[in-house]
Amino acid sequence: MQINGEMIIGRRIVRGSAGNVRAYDPAKHATLEPEFGIATADDLAAACALAGDAFDAYRNLPLEQRARFLETIADRIMDIGPLLLERAGQESGLPPARLEGERGRTCNQLRLFAKVVRDGHFLEATLDSALPQRTPPRPDLRMRKIGLGPVAVFGASNFPLAFSVAGGDTASALAAGCPVVVKAHNAHLGTSELVAKAIRQAAEECGMPEGVFSMVIGEGYQIGLDLVTHPAIKAVGFTGSRQGGLALVKAAAARKEPIPVYAEMSSINPFYLLPNALAAGGQKLAQGFVDSLTMGVGQFCTNPGLVIALAGEQFDAFRSAAAQALGVKPAGTMLTAGIHQAYSSAVSKRSGIAGVQLVGQGSAEGQGCAAQAALYQTDAATFLANPDLEEEIFGPASLMIACRDEAELLAVTEHVEGQLTATLHATPEDRAVAAKLLPILERKAGRILFNGFPTGVEVSYAMVHGGPFPATSDSRTTSVGATAIERFLRPVCYQDVPAELLPVELGDANELGLTRLVDGQLKTAQ
Amino acid sequence: MQINGEMIIGRRIVRGSAGNVRAYDPAKHATLEPEFGIATADDLAAACALAGDAFDAYRNLPLEQRARFLETIADRIMDIGPLLLERAGQESGLPPARLEGERGRTCNQLRLFAKVVRDGHFLEATLDSALPQRTPPRPDLRMRKIGLGPVAVFGASNFPLAFSVAGGDTASALAAGCPVVVKAHNAHLGTSELVAKAIRQAAEECGMPEGVFSMVIGEGYQIGLDLVTHPAIKAVGFTGSRQGGLALVKAAAARKEPIPVYAEMSSINPFYLLPNALAAGGQKLAQGFVDSLTMGVGQFCTNPGLVIALAGEQFDAFRSAAAQALGVKPAGTMLTAGIHQAYSSAVSKRSGIAGVQLVGQGSAEGQGCAAQAALYQTDAATFLANPDLEEEIFGPASLMIACRDEAELLAVTEHVEGQLTATLHATPEDRAVAAKLLPILERKAGRILFNGFPTGVEVSYAMVHGGPFPATSDSRTTSVGATAIERFLRPVCYQDVPAELLPVELGDANELGLTRLVDGQLKTAQ
Repeated sequence: MQINGEMIIGRRIVRGSAGNVRAYDPAKHATLEPEFGIATADDLAAACALAGDAFDAYRNLPLEQRARFLETIADRIMDIGPLLLERAGQESGLPPARLEGERGRTCNQLRLFAKVVRDGHFLEATLDSALPQRTPPRPDLRMRKIGLGPVAVFGASNFPLAFSVAGGDTASALAAGCPVVVKAHNAHLGTSELVAKAIRQAAEECGMPEGVFSMVIGEGYQIGLDLVTHPAIKAVGFTGSRQGGLALVKAAAARKEPIPVYAEMSSINPFYLLPNALAAGGQKLAQGFVDSLTMGVGQFCTNPGLVIALAGEQFDAFRSAAAQALGVKPAGTMLTAGIHQAYSSAVSKRSGIAGVQLVGQGSAEGQGCAAQAALYQTDAATFLANPDLEEEIFGPASLMIACRDEAELLAVTEHVEGQLTATLHATPEDRAVAAKLLPILERKAGRILFNGFPTGVEVSYAMVHGGPFPATSDSRTTSVGATAIERFLRPVCYQDVPAELLPVELGDANELGLTRLVDGQLKTAQ
Repeated sequence: MQINGEMIIGRRIVRGSAGNVRAYDPAKHATLEPEFGIATADDLAAACALAGDAFDAYRNLPLEQRARFLETIADRIMDIGPLLLERAGQESGLPPARLEGERGRTCNQLRLFAKVVRDGHFLEATLDSALPQRTPPRPDLRMRKIGLGPVAVFGASNFPLAFSVAGGDTASALAAGCPVVVKAHNAHLGTSELVAKAIRQAAEECGMPEGVFSMVIGEGYQIGLDLVTHPAIKAVGFTGSRQGGLALVKAAAARKEPIPVYAEMSSINPFYLLPNALAAGGQKLAQGFVDSLTMGVGQFCTNPGLVIALAGEQFDAFRSAAAQALGVKPAGTMLTAGIHQAYSSAVSKRSGIAGVQLVGQGSAEGQGCAAQAALYQTDAATFLANPDLEEEIFGPASLMIACRDEAELLAVTEHVEGQLTATLHATPEDRAVAAKLLPILERKAGRILFNGFPTGVEVSYAMVHGGPFPATSDSRTTSVGATAIERFLRPVCYQDVPAELLPVELGDANELGLTRLVDGQLKTAQ
């Protein structure tokens, strides 16, 4: 497979003719070959129209065929071989081991969704028997979920594989029976082209209808807005900045037919050190915290950006240990020049806020778009009075909040906006305060974890990578894990529909062997 | 129980002091006693703040207690006795039998949600075992759904009981663990007061936290906007006009923390007469159609407002029969003077559209706000060219579209906006065209029914009373039936949370005997 600067419109490999754009090597501060052609308005419209045309055919394929398509995408991604990791490394500055892991995660996600499709629980097949003798008679009612329609997916800068062209949004939308049009992220255009071609190949092999997948290339905001406002598009998946996410939400709401937007945006992931845990292992915790903070140059949505504890000697000792651990962390290459610039300016702005002290820094040494880690400290009163301190700094920066007492700790917790995660370090002796924090954190965060680190998001059934605004634009869902499929589904009820016209999922024979809710009782297949 | 013009703020019975408003008898064209006090800004804020305060306590009550609360509300509503039906009749012009049925439906809804709460499927309890030996180790992950927070409910004009103070939105929100603040509909203030007092009594008896339920009274749009934009409110349920629904959607989206709005708004419910069904029983169908059209003076969201068939003798015969059946239908009293005025003006506007013929009318005789039924006919080309013909006329008016051929029938189907329902009258010989319509209708409607009438919405597990925009503002859900509870829930994941702090639903012991997804397998309790 070669990188030619092309995109995918249905079955066609197309070179855009509305200008050119190049990928960039952030470590070498250099643009990369080749040039990529930008989609014309006609290219974009063609991709969306094909997706609309493909919807009925795609969603009505047997579930087994849909599942095999997802698995074949994973196989074809692996087939690309070392070129994919090489190019992703050049485009992101991420190290080979991380990218190899991320490729594995990408394929595992596709395979998990293949299993989800085969299991068929996502259909929520529900049958209510007719009651012809009742007054008034009850009709025969059957319900299943179907896809919303074509989904626009915006890749994330920080996961060139797992949250990009064949990432979680694409995998869950395809699993739901929805065609996908991806807007490639300009930070990894070559990676995107390779993966898009792998999907195209899988679609062809598996006999998918044309339009089940397209990927377009563009520059600036307009192409994204054009994509989201195309009438064929019925939902949007996005991972990125608060500003970018909100722009898409606004555009989607202003459509003649408004559509849902799942934007995963901004989270600072409060990280609590409860007194006994701090006393028992503050030193070790400091090292773990610094490792989590600087992993991937802090470019994770779940980066611990806020450390909350009671003021005192133990927290001071933690701070010293963290500052020391941070001091030997090299400045890592950030994903893009733009992200690096935004990080530098946010850090310098934070350093100038009254009542906030810089208490630790990473090494300044590093090549390319290198980010020096930064640890700040403030008191609860300053934090509560200053909304800027809640702004996410994307990168290896964190803010320690020293609370005077438990009441202040709880007040800070009630004050913070919605989060993807909240972490508690606690021993059994901290149980009383943990029990007070839990109901607040349930309201604030999508995932609550004990005695661990929030970076590292398992792809499984029970994972929630979501949370109240502004962590996401829609707290009712998750963008990682099996239930991400629910984002792209809606229920349809069939009343007295003749047996020969019923979807196979809802037939009396239960040919697919689904677990179904029958007259209010869950029934597994015989 | 007495009607005093009062509202409910937490445990208190309060008389609003920001002015007065009265209910109205549409049959007698007369205002009703007593005056109702309008909520002050402080009253509204108090109701919302109490709801916010009650949320953690309420949602953490045992499921059994939550279920009993719902059942007790039903019991207390029945205890009100004949006064409730009398007053509801005065305020709505609806006949006693209909209101008695609606009261039964209201109580059945509450009891169904009690069962849904006890079953606990709505929690979607999911457990992924820890894999400590894996590289990297997998943590213990457990997920459940919790309530979104306090819900604002706006009652509908056309169901003074079943879609009002203790209607489907309130029942499903309370079932989800969310406190509720109702804005009473001014068309049935006395009915609302009686039901609100019944809920207050049930809350007291069942030991509910103060603030689990409040009901406020107001006039004009502002109080609704103030309610939706109060920071404690986390979701909105609304049934009413497209204009009203969209105003709430807009206000909710403009909040600092945007919240979901479930607005059930506008649907014209296409009603297909396929050729063989028309040939086999056009006469009988005409009578059934007219009965469905005029039932409740056409004031149902699922009223058949669009009749679609192939042009020809059979459709002409149907039209004649329908016109005849319609001719003897008396003009019924509409719910409010405002609705009557809107109906009259919409009908007279439609009569003036070129290419549209008035082909049948109900009797003009009637008292009070009486609506004369109207049946129009046009051809597909006129319909496709004129967006006004897609506007819902709330009342007993319908438009017949004569299509030249199957292609035009399909084009009209692709053209219509989102709908709550689509009805097909078809014999086995109509199967080929029905099979072409079905995938289009699945994209367009929440419920597809064969050989029946769309009015009449069963409260059950498989019911979907929802559909793509503008039928609702959120096609992913239903406002009737057991799954309406999903509207007010969001998932929370618990990672390595110590056993003694885990919610009981997620404990190893499965004390509640829930069916749970464990490592991807549905497991019922032992």
